[in-house]
Amino acid sequence: MSQNRVVILGAGFGGLTAARELAKYADVTLVDRHNFQTFLPLLYQVSTAGLAADHVAYPVRGALRGSGVKFCLGSPMMIDHKNKSVKIDSGQVLEFDHLIVALGSATADFGIKGVADFSYGMKSVHEAIAIRASVMRHFEDLCRFPDTTTCELTVVGGGPTGVEMAGAIAELIRGPLRRDEPSVASRMHIRLIEAGVRLLPSFNPKLSERTKLDLEKLGVEVLLETAVQEVTSNSITLGSGEQIASNMTIWAAGVKGSPAIHALNLPVERERLAVEPTLQVRNYPYIWAIGDVSGALGADGRALPMVAPVALQQGKWVARQIKAVMNNAALAPFVYRDKGSMATIGRHKAVVEVKNFRIAGPIAWLVWLWLHLFYLLGGRNKVGTIADWTWNYLTFDRANRHIIDEL
Amino acid sequence: MSQNRVVILGAGFGGLTAARELAKYADVTLVDRHNFQTFLPLLYQVSTAGLAADHVAYPVRGALRGSGVKFCLGSPMMIDHKNKSVKIDSGQVLEFDHLIVALGSATADFGIKGVADFSYGMKSVHEAIAIRASVMRHFEDLCRFPDTTTCELTVVGGGPTGVEMAGAIAELIRGPLRRDEPSVASRMHIRLIEAGVRLLPSFNPKLSERTKLDLEKLGVEVLLETAVQEVTSNSITLGSGEQIASNMTIWAAGVKGSPAIHALNLPVERERLAVEPTLQVRNYPYIWAIGDVSGALGADGRALPMVAPVALQQGKWVARQIKAVMNNAALAPFVYRDKGSMATIGRHKAVVEVKNFRIAGPIAWLVWLWLHLFYLLGGRNKVGTIADWTWNYLTFDRANRHIIDEL
Repeated sequence: MSQNRVVILGAGFGGLTAARELAKYADVTLVDRHNFQTFLPLLYQVSTAGLAADHVAYPVRGALRGSGVKFCLGSPMMIDHKNKSVKIDSGQVLEFDHLIVALGSATADFGIKGVADFSYGMKSVHEAIAIRASVMRHFEDLCRFPDTTTCELTVVGGGPTGVEMAGAIAELIRGPLRRDEPSVASRMHIRLIEAGVRLLPSFNPKLSERTKLDLEKLGVEVLLETAVQEVTSNSITLGSGEQIASNMTIWAAGVKGSPAIHALNLPVERERLAVEPTLQVRNYPYIWAIGDVSGALGADGRALPMVAPVALQQGKWVARQIKAVMNNAALAPFVYRDKGSMATIGRHKAVVEVKNFRIAGPIAWLVWLWLHLFYLLGGRNKVGTIADWTWNYLTFDRANRHIIDEL
Repeated sequence: MSQNRVVILGAGFGGLTAARELAKYADVTLVDRHNFQTFLPLLYQVSTAGLAADHVAYPVRGALRGSGVKFCLGSPMMIDHKNKSVKIDSGQVLEFDHLIVALGSATADFGIKGVADFSYGMKSVHEAIAIRASVMRHFEDLCRFPDTTTCELTVVGGGPTGVEMAGAIAELIRGPLRRDEPSVASRMHIRLIEAGVRLLPSFNPKLSERTKLDLEKLGVEVLLETAVQEVTSNSITLGSGEQIASNMTIWAAGVKGSPAIHALNLPVERERLAVEPTLQVRNYPYIWAIGDVSGALGADGRALPMVAPVALQQGKWVARQIKAVMNNAALAPFVYRDKGSMATIGRHKAVVEVKNFRIAGPIAWLVWLWLHLFYLLGGRNKVGTIADWTWNYLTFDRANRHIIDEL
């Protein structure tokens, strides 16, 4: 009887990496609710008309071609521990010897009123297309009123996601929209709200300061030490009780482990799966959790950040661990190697921090471009993205301004 | 008092051409319900994962830049003839001296039962994304059943649209899907139904025969002289009363003038606006109709075909006519110059017919590629489409297989 059936839930950075690694010595089935992987780090460029939506998606079956890994479209419903199987909403029951949970993350609203109903998340192609449509529709709405009506756009959350989004919206307004209708574009305001004392809290304070200045130069109003109490369709109530106008609110203030884990009835801690240092889910040595959904701790005892590099490293790691189990070898604790962080603010502007090495400006921007292209799945997406970027760069235009959200 | 306010309803081939021509000597406002123009001739490639959806769309404001033409997002609700104005659903009222109706066409079901509810049209980016999602979902569904379950896909209508669609689906199945899951792809069947005695009835019979053979070589089952009586979610009842399985039906059997014309309360004949030879709407000399929505007749007394070249020529023509009215010059009847027709069947395969000159095969295919690229709006779309096509050509792959239809 073979002991090498592995089922992987989620085809994101972690799940897909694990699948490819395990394919050599295991019978692997990869499950995802989409038939494509979404390249989340570039989603904000779809939201702001810089990239074609199809370029940040890649068919999972294309990525698995020749590997022998099977793909199953669906979401997990429940785990049957007795028979070691997982039931998929498509009706399929997948038996496993090892189960890897790599379901990723969802927008966290921290219970703040109105966030779920009135703000846009940044976790899927669908949301990106919806944000793009909403920004462009607000622009068209303003075009109808040759008066002083304004449109207030707010991004909440001063981490890399929020910073990149705010910068890209500012460039969209200052660039193509201003060329379309100068008097209208000047009535669209973009604001970035952060609860902490500085932007990019995980970076060196000097880069935080530089980022703030760069964003302000682009026309972004940056509010620090500003909490959000409630979001409505056209306003935000701040921690101070003050209510400010916000015709469109984008929520980049937090993520949590995918809510899909609750259906699986596994131990959850702080909205992520409770795991041993080996990445095995607590009490379930044949179930592993990697990526955003995994509550693995770093060397400092704090939960690891929900970023792609962690998922990629854990995907490789878990494959080695499962191989060790098959060979009755000893398991080892996962150690995250932080290779640094980066964020782009706009044309020629980015910040990169690798250990004590920090750069900002055009070179950081080129590093950012190169690394994102490198990790983008598929030659076609790379070529298409290079074409889009080159076009945007040379023409200062954004050609994907289409309102295509009501299917 | 100026007499040069022109409002144009519809930013398709006809409307946009007229707007650009008139911009030089008139105060032009262009109205469309989308903020982008859709390049309909390549929609079927989006449906079959060959092109990114955003590449067949182009922002109208981008196309109008520098021309001085104003753009208004919305649909016309009614015409006020007394005040010479048109009311838009956005609430705006646009006054005009001349109104050009260029609202295009919609799928015609000829009253056949079930077509509206159970078949896919081919008239919008939304429908193209929906067809792509449905084909890919049927493929994933089949993947769950390692048995003899089949999936029957039907395209109804043997004109250029139906022929190109059937050929592209056949190539999708034979190419990427077969590489993903050979045993599954072989259970997906594609069928083309035409009521007449031959495919491409507007072409020379020799090209019709060639097209049929080419499609059959690709694996398309071609049914001629076959009428459709009813469509359901999983079957088609033929004229003979026979019921055949069809898990997905795509309707390319006919188009009619946009139903939006009925709201305008203008004279309609055979589902298109009744016009004088000058393209003026009958009884309304200050209203003009061009493109698919216009019931203009050809030299042979038959209604002109609903194709892009007619709309482009009429767009230019109507601009000249309106200029003539402004200058109190005489009007002239529109004469359509038929520059020929073409259709592509698949890799290296196409038919082109220009008057008595006919070609088929690789050269026709290159002519087809070149002309479609030439008329595609925007350098970014041209570059992106070349990239996609080159990629598809070299890899035999289709990288846009994403199911993104539930927003």
